[in-house]
Amino acid sequence: MEDKLKKIKAIAFDIDGVMTDGNILAMPDGDLLRVFEAKDSMALRMLKLTGIVSAVITGASTESIKTRMVYCGVKPEDVYLHSRKKIEDFEDFCERHGFSAEEVMYLGDDLPDIPVLKAAGLGVAPADACAEACEAADYVSEYKGGRFFFRNTVEMVLKAQGKWALDVEDYKKKF
Amino acid sequence: MEDKLKKIKAIAFDIDGVMTDGNILAMPDGDLLRVFEAKDSMALRMLKLTGIVSAVITGASTESIKTRMVYCGVKPEDVYLHSRKKIEDFEDFCERHGFSAEEVMYLGDDLPDIPVLKAAGLGVAPADACAEACEAADYVSEYKGGRFFFRNTVEMVLKAQGKWALDVEDYKKKF
Amino acid sequence: MEDKLKKIKAIAFDIDGVMTDGNILAMPDGDLLRVFEAKDSMALRMLKLTGIVSAVITGASTESIKTRMVYCGVKPEDVYLHSRKKIEDFEDFCERHGFSAEEVMYLGDDLPDIPVLKAAGLGVAPADACAEACEAADYVSEYKGGRFFFRNTVEMVLKAQGKWALDVEDYKKKF
Amino acid sequence: MEDKLKKIKAIAFDIDGVMTDGNILAMPDGDLLRVFEAKDSMALRMLKLTGIVSAVITGASTESIKTRMVYCGVKPEDVYLHSRKKIEDFEDFCERHGFSAEEVMYLGDDLPDIPVLKAAGLGVAPADACAEACEAADYVSEYKGGRFFFRNTVEMVLKAQGKWALDVEDYKKKF
Repeated sequence: MEDKLKKIKAIAFDIDGVMTDGNILAMPDGDLLRVFEAKDSMALRMLKLTGIVSAVITGASTESIKTRMVYCGVKPEDVYLHSRKKIEDFEDFCERHGFSAEEVMYLGDDLPDIPVLKAAGLGVAPADACAEACEAADYVSEYKGGRFFFRNTVEMVLKAQGKWALDVEDYKKKF
Repeated sequence: MEDKLKKIKAIAFDIDGVMTDGNILAMPDGDLLRVFEAKDSMALRMLKLTGIVSAVITGASTESIKTRMVYCGVKPEDVYLHSRKKIEDFEDFCERHGFSAEEVMYLGDDLPDIPVLKAAGLGVAPADACAEACEAADYVSEYKGGRFFFRNTVEMVLKAQGKWALDVEDYKKKF
Repeated sequence: MEDKLKKIKAIAFDIDGVMTDGNILAMPDGDLLRVFEAKDSMALRMLKLTGIVSAVITGASTESIKTRMVYCGVKPEDVYLHSRKKIEDFEDFCERHGFSAEEVMYLGDDLPDIPVLKAAGLGVAPADACAEACEAADYVSEYKGGRFFFRNTVEMVLKAQGKWALDVEDYKKKF
Repeated sequence: MEDKLKKIKAIAFDIDGVMTDGNILAMPDGDLLRVFEAKDSMALRMLKLTGIVSAVITGASTESIKTRMVYCGVKPEDVYLHSRKKIEDFEDFCERHGFSAEEVMYLGDDLPDIPVLKAAGLGVAPADACAEACEAADYVSEYKGGRFFFRNTVEMVLKAQGKWALDVEDYKKKF
């Protein structure tokens, strides 16, 4: 595991149930809003600050997800919304950046995530992922989606690589 | 139970406390918004993908519920809003589709659901349903409303029928 | 206790932490929105259906609280918003309806509720009320605010009075 | 500890994960809304009523946070939004009011809070703060952010100073 964590150059992740606790607020106009956790969001910023590439691959279509993720350091072109066949978007992401699958970690929690959990160098599922996603993952976290799962997983990667430290000056400059 | 699950052709369900955790956000204009769970919503899509008919029978009147449910595969004519005497809407649904009560599962959690929980082929209540609904149900789930109750119940039906598998191509086409 | 429950003709209650779990969503325009629980709301409707008078005495000023409470059967004139000295509003409510304090139950969870918890015939606090409110109350529920505290307390009253039963026809007519 | 609590003249605090449970609702226009807890908010009002100065030092930029905090008694000039190097804002606050660091308590839960948790007279972290913040704090509460952590910490200060009592007349006048 430690060896695999050291090789990770990018983290791709699902939104609902992974970066969030799975809750979706249905607005009168059909828009679907999400709630993000602050310490999980800080971990996403840490990726940008330490040079790990991040990508979103979600079945959701809501633009506010993209806005939030870009605000936390994901590049707009690395946010895949309305992803139905996620493995294709995963491969596109790897290709565009020249990553081998081994260099990319994927975080997912439900049936559509399974092919990517298997294809990625490290597939990780939150504690409350569905049984099939847990089985497909290399590692199941003790933390739940939207409640420190993302934070803890990012910490594992950055600590294995000796990068878990906040440089406040750099933070001030980049965010 | 296994035999009853195999006969199920349709699942009708309440919204508040069943498809949601019971929470209702009161907006300034009097509108009442709901929060839906992603994996529960995926289970609703699985019904459409596997040919099980779904129906909503809720006391709520909010149009955004209908929008969300239709987005996840329920037909607009099978969403009964502002249902006060739920048994009438349940019978209407069965009649329109030519289902016998035995072929329909009903999920409910509160006093207005009791007649339907009794009439349906299988009445199922979430872990946090009121005591009277639990008593009226054939089965009380270990999962709470809005937190994998719907998911787990759908899985029970589809697994009993050998249909619990996501065909990503079909998913891409239909959603 | 049983004797006291039988005498109750009205239930007055606080909103935040009592009818809700204490959470308040702060909107950009300064408005403060609340989340209400469906089964707790059903209990409020049961009060109207069984002839128990209900009243809201809250420090909150948000109009959407009034809209929601009236929708669930409280009369507009019995909703006291922006209540700072709650005992005055409690006395006004009792006077207008000709209730003695013994005939009114009060549900509260925080410091401003203490004088009313003491004055009412039965003062009841949710499980997560502050220590001082628990001490001032005649009874501390095992349920938390916004999560079946209101429901359970109403059930106690209506069951003691032999009124805990939903008449669907009456429900259809009045709501 | 008791001695340190008696010296406290001001409480500065972070928002996300401290005054809230860390949840952030992402709106379509990019605005980020927060949920505040009623009894925690009441504790903030108690600070104004008892003459303890309060200040907000948050990385968040949302104006609705300021509106809410000012509504609960914080002076507008003591709300630091979009704080990236929090120690600078902490020192500015102390200077403007003529407080020594010993007289100011700071409540924080994440990496950017660590320098201030160390600099303040008393640094306090909620139960669900990150490990590094817990280590930097003088005291780790048994309560979680947004769920009575702020309330309990304020109570500790005011009780040590013999000021934990609500004067309803004063409350009515000032809020």
